[in-house]
Amino acid sequence: MSANDRFRSFENLGDATPFVARILDIMDYIRVFAGFERAEIEALARYMRCYRVAAGIEVIVEGEPGDFMLLLIEGNMEIAKKDHRGLPVRIADANPGKTLGEMSVIDGEPRFASCVTVTEAVIAVLGRDELMRLVGEKPQLGVKLLMQMAVLLNQRLRQVSLQYMKVLDESRKLAA
Amino acid sequence: MSANDRFRSFENLGDATPFVARILDIMDYIRVFAGFERAEIEALARYMRCYRVAAGIEVIVEGEPGDFMLLLIEGNMEIAKKDHRGLPVRIADANPGKTLGEMSVIDGEPRFASCVTVTEAVIAVLGRDELMRLVGEKPQLGVKLLMQMAVLLNQRLRQVSLQYMKVLDESRKLAA
Repeated sequence: MSANDRFRSFENLGDATPFVARILDIMDYIRVFAGFERAEIEALARYMRCYRVAAGIEVIVEGEPGDFMLLLIEGNMEIAKKDHRGLPVRIADANPGKTLGEMSVIDGEPRFASCVTVTEAVIAVLGRDELMRLVGEKPQLGVKLLMQMAVLLNQRLRQVSLQYMKVLDESRKLAA
Repeated sequence: MSANDRFRSFENLGDATPFVARILDIMDYIRVFAGFERAEIEALARYMRCYRVAAGIEVIVEGEPGDFMLLLIEGNMEIAKKDHRGLPVRIADANPGKTLGEMSVIDGEPRFASCVTVTEAVIAVLGRDELMRLVGEKPQLGVKLLMQMAVLLNQRLRQVSLQYMKVLDESRKLAA
């Protein structure tokens, strides 16, 4: 099933404007919106589409080409990646305020991991086309969002690089 | 020695305008400028400062707070990171067209690794303040640059994450 077909099976709640109050409530957990004003969230909300999704649904599928990111507004999700045997391994949990899929919304590359709803969830989706439209129509806001996305990518890159070097060190010791 | 003192010891060649032709020559190797037009490079060049640096100089120092990125225009550099014993390990080489320090220019966090000139080198430096000024004065160009930086951060994050998972897998097998 393509991402588009999958989205058609979700309950479409329209743009994120009715969820601005909820988004502001969970702002402390939305790292990509750090430093955003209410007016900026309101402007951004018009570029996002909201959906209600049942529990147990794979919203992002590992390996699929990706062209959207999502903000988890209500409910919980799980992030899983297949190991070398092709078996999904849970690598993280996601709670309200968590954004998922930022990597693919930027470069359109295949999804690195899958994201599955653990409970019924409400998600706000920002598509690549909408991100590009935002950047064209409201460059100041677009820059602020891209900058913040880059900061988060950076932090993850630093963390993963450190973990990688640590494991590499340990595996060398084991192999020695 | 602070980064500022270090830069004062380099030969200051002014802004990057006189190097636009050279930058266009090595465009194929400058991944952060992928898709940039000549006029965009010319505009960007006015926000960059160029320096000639002798061989054997640490231009970026691991652990130092970072507030600039650089484009290697001429010469070669080496990237090294200290291992758990504090000994520098060469992790990569840099040739003309390579950009270094993008992570810290975005988040101002301490440098992840050191970059040392192997030969005499010419570098074009984009400071965080200049990046912010660019984004304010030329948002379309700023967005294009930030987007491209995010794409590259992404690619590195995917690569490192895959390497990490592979090493993790192997070290589990060794430990088993």
